[in-house]
Amino acid sequence: MTDKDFSVTPWEVSGVVDYARLIRDFGTQPLTEELGRKFSALAGEKHLAIERGVYYSHRDLDLVLKDYEAGKKFFLYTGRGPSGPMHIGHIIQFYLTSWLQKRFGVNTYVQLTDDEKFLEEKSPTLEETNRWAKENALDIAAAGFDPDRTFIFQDTEYIGNIYRLAVKVARKVNFSVVRAVFGFTGETNIGFAFYPAVQVVPSLFEDSRCLIPCAIDQDPFWRVQRDIAESLGYRKAAALHSKFLPPLTGVAGKMSASMPETAIYLSDTPEQVRQKIWKNAFSGGRATIEEHRRLGGDPDVDVPYLWLQMFFEGDDAKLKKLHDDYVSGKLLSGEMKEVLIEKVTRFLKGHQERRERARDSLDSFTRSGRLASAMWAKTYGLDTKEINRG
Amino acid sequence: MTDKDFSVTPWEVSGVVDYARLIRDFGTQPLTEELGRKFSALAGEKHLAIERGVYYSHRDLDLVLKDYEAGKKFFLYTGRGPSGPMHIGHIIQFYLTSWLQKRFGVNTYVQLTDDEKFLEEKSPTLEETNRWAKENALDIAAAGFDPDRTFIFQDTEYIGNIYRLAVKVARKVNFSVVRAVFGFTGETNIGFAFYPAVQVVPSLFEDSRCLIPCAIDQDPFWRVQRDIAESLGYRKAAALHSKFLPPLTGVAGKMSASMPETAIYLSDTPEQVRQKIWKNAFSGGRATIEEHRRLGGDPDVDVPYLWLQMFFEGDDAKLKKLHDDYVSGKLLSGEMKEVLIEKVTRFLKGHQERRERARDSLDSFTRSGRLASAMWAKTYGLDTKEINRG
Repeated sequence: MTDKDFSVTPWEVSGVVDYARLIRDFGTQPLTEELGRKFSALAGEKHLAIERGVYYSHRDLDLVLKDYEAGKKFFLYTGRGPSGPMHIGHIIQFYLTSWLQKRFGVNTYVQLTDDEKFLEEKSPTLEETNRWAKENALDIAAAGFDPDRTFIFQDTEYIGNIYRLAVKVARKVNFSVVRAVFGFTGETNIGFAFYPAVQVVPSLFEDSRCLIPCAIDQDPFWRVQRDIAESLGYRKAAALHSKFLPPLTGVAGKMSASMPETAIYLSDTPEQVRQKIWKNAFSGGRATIEEHRRLGGDPDVDVPYLWLQMFFEGDDAKLKKLHDDYVSGKLLSGEMKEVLIEKVTRFLKGHQERRERARDSLDSFTRSGRLASAMWAKTYGLDTKEINRG
Repeated sequence: MTDKDFSVTPWEVSGVVDYARLIRDFGTQPLTEELGRKFSALAGEKHLAIERGVYYSHRDLDLVLKDYEAGKKFFLYTGRGPSGPMHIGHIIQFYLTSWLQKRFGVNTYVQLTDDEKFLEEKSPTLEETNRWAKENALDIAAAGFDPDRTFIFQDTEYIGNIYRLAVKVARKVNFSVVRAVFGFTGETNIGFAFYPAVQVVPSLFEDSRCLIPCAIDQDPFWRVQRDIAESLGYRKAAALHSKFLPPLTGVAGKMSASMPETAIYLSDTPEQVRQKIWKNAFSGGRATIEEHRRLGGDPDVDVPYLWLQMFFEGDDAKLKKLHDDYVSGKLLSGEMKEVLIEKVTRFLKGHQERRERARDSLDSFTRSGRLASAMWAKTYGLDTKEINRG
C-alpha cells in the first residue's frame, strides 16, 4: 500500500507508517486485548511482543487458537530474504517464533528466499544471496528453535521438492493479480513475477492451519495465499503481524541493511553498538541539559526508549520508570542511550555465542534433524489435491 | 505472429501458414540450397527433411557447421509438451534429431515440458502432464537416440538441477518482453509467464553452440534466448526450423491432439490408419473418377501426397511419378491414399516395436546412461558466469 505520507510493500517501507491505516487497507484484524489474553493463556506465558503491541494485527489467529483448544495442532512458517547481514529488526521475528514453537510444541518452517532477493535485483549475483542464506541461517538457528521440529531451507536448494506445488499455485494467480497486489509492472522480470507462488508454498506444508508471524509488509503474500488456498484443497493461512522496530535514525521507514547507520547488526561489537547508539540514535531529548531538565523529553519519538519498549526492557515497572523519568526530565537522553547500550550489548553477546554454537547444530535444521530429514524425503504437489473449479 | 489469414504462436497455429512470411516476421534465415548442400556434405548423408524443404529456415546453422568444420562440437536440444498422445506430426522432429545425433556424434537433450502444458491450462491436472511425459518419453526414445548421449528429462523432476540457471535467465526477461514476444496479457498466470526461462535453460547446457531442431512456431523462445544468452556468458542458440506436417483434414493449421480427426497417432492400429486416411484425408482429387481422369488432381493440396513428399516416400523418382501421375489423372486419389496407408502402416509397425523395446532402455535416457547420469550429478547456475552489465 502506498500513500503520499508513507509506503509499505514487501520490498520497501518509507515514511512514518500509520499502522491502523494498514489494518484497514490490507483488510486484516486488530489484535485485540481479549485475543491477546487468550493467546497468552494458551501459551501459558506472556510475551513482550504481544503485551507491548509489537504484534498488533492478525488474520485468523482466533481460528488457530480455537483449533489448538480443540486439540488440533497448527504449524509455524516464517522466512528471511537473504540479501545481507541480519540486524536487530530482523531477528526479533525469529525469537518470537521460537518462543511460539516452544509454548505450543509445533513444527516450524523457515524459508530463505535466495531466489527472491536475486530476482528483486537487490543483489548483483545469486551466489551472493546463496552465501547470505548460509550466514543468516546461523543467526536464525541461534534464536532457539528445536532442531528436530524446525526446517530451515533455501529456495534454490529445496525447489526440487516444491516446484510442482509452486506451479499449481502459480496457475491460480494471474499477472493482473500480482500487478494489483504487489504493484508489478511490465518492467518486472518474469522470475520475480513467479516468485509469489514460491513464497506461498510453505504455507501449505502441513494438513493443518499455518500461522505466519511476520512484519505487516509481508501481508500481501498471504492475501494471495488466502485467495487460492482452498481451491487447491488447502487451508487459508493465518498471520500475526508485527510493527517494524524503528530505524536508529528515527521513526520513519524501517531499518535497512543498505543504510548501515539505521541498524545495529547482529555481528556488531560492543564498541560499534556504543558508537552507533550514541551517534545515530534519534533522541526525543531536548537540545540542552538545562532545557531537558526543565521541559522533559518525548519518549514517543525517542528511538532508544522505543527499542527498550518493543524488545529490550522486559520489566514493565522499569520501563514505566524510564518513561516517566524521561517525560519529567529526570532522565537525560544520554542516560536512556546508556540503558539501551547495556541491554543491546548483553543481548548481542548471548546471540553471538548461540550463533557460534549453532554451527554444530545447523545441519539438524537444514538436513538431518527429524523434521528436516522428513522434508527432504517429500515432494509436494504430487497428488491431485486441487479441487477443479473449471 | 498473427495475421488476419493465419496465426502462429508456440501454442496455437491456425489458417494456412505463409512460411516465407514467417521468415520475415520472425527475422530468421531461409535455409538456402547452398547451406543445405554443405549440411548434407558434413553429415555425410542426405536427409529427406532437408532435401524436401521440410526444414526451411534457420538461425546460425552456418555458424554451427563452421564450428563443426573447425573440429568444435555442438549439441542438440529439442523438446515436447506432453499434453496427450503423440502423433506423426510430433515424431518427425525426433527422427530428424536422432539422425543429426548419429551423423555428427553429438549429445542431445530432450525436454518434456510437463510444467508448461499444465500452466498453459491445456491439461486439467499436473498429474496428467506427468503421465503423458512418461508415455511420450517412450515414443521419443523409440526414434533411435543413443542412450549414452541423450538425456530425456521432465521439467518437474529435473527442476532442482536447473532452477538456479532459470532464475538467472528470468531476471534478464521482463514482463513487457514476454507480452511482446508471446502475446501474454494480464490474464496470463504467473507460472506461464515464468516458463519461457525454463525452456531457455537447456540451450545453455554445454559450453558450445546449441542447435535446436524445432517447428517454426517455437522460434519466439529462441529469440528471447538470443537476446540474453551472451549477457549470461553463454552462446546464442542456433535453430533449424521445420514446417508443420499438414493435418489430415487439409493444409490449414496443424495437427492437433485435441482434434483427433486431424491426426494419426503413433499408437493407431492398421485399421485405424486405413479408416482415418480414407475418411479424413483431404484430397486434391476431383469429384468423380471420370473428371479426375480428364482433368487430373492437385498434389499441392492433397494431404496424402504432401505426407509422402514430406516424410514417407524417400525415393525421389517414385515421388515424382506419384506427382506426375496425379496431375495427369492417371493416379486416382484413392490410389494415392493406398500408397500412404501402406507407408504409414509400415512406419507405425516399426515405431511401435521400437517403442516396446524402449521400455527396457528408457532408464538409460532418463537416469542411468552416460549423459543422463552426468546430468543428474550437475547443478546449473552455481557459478557466477554472468557478465554483469549493471
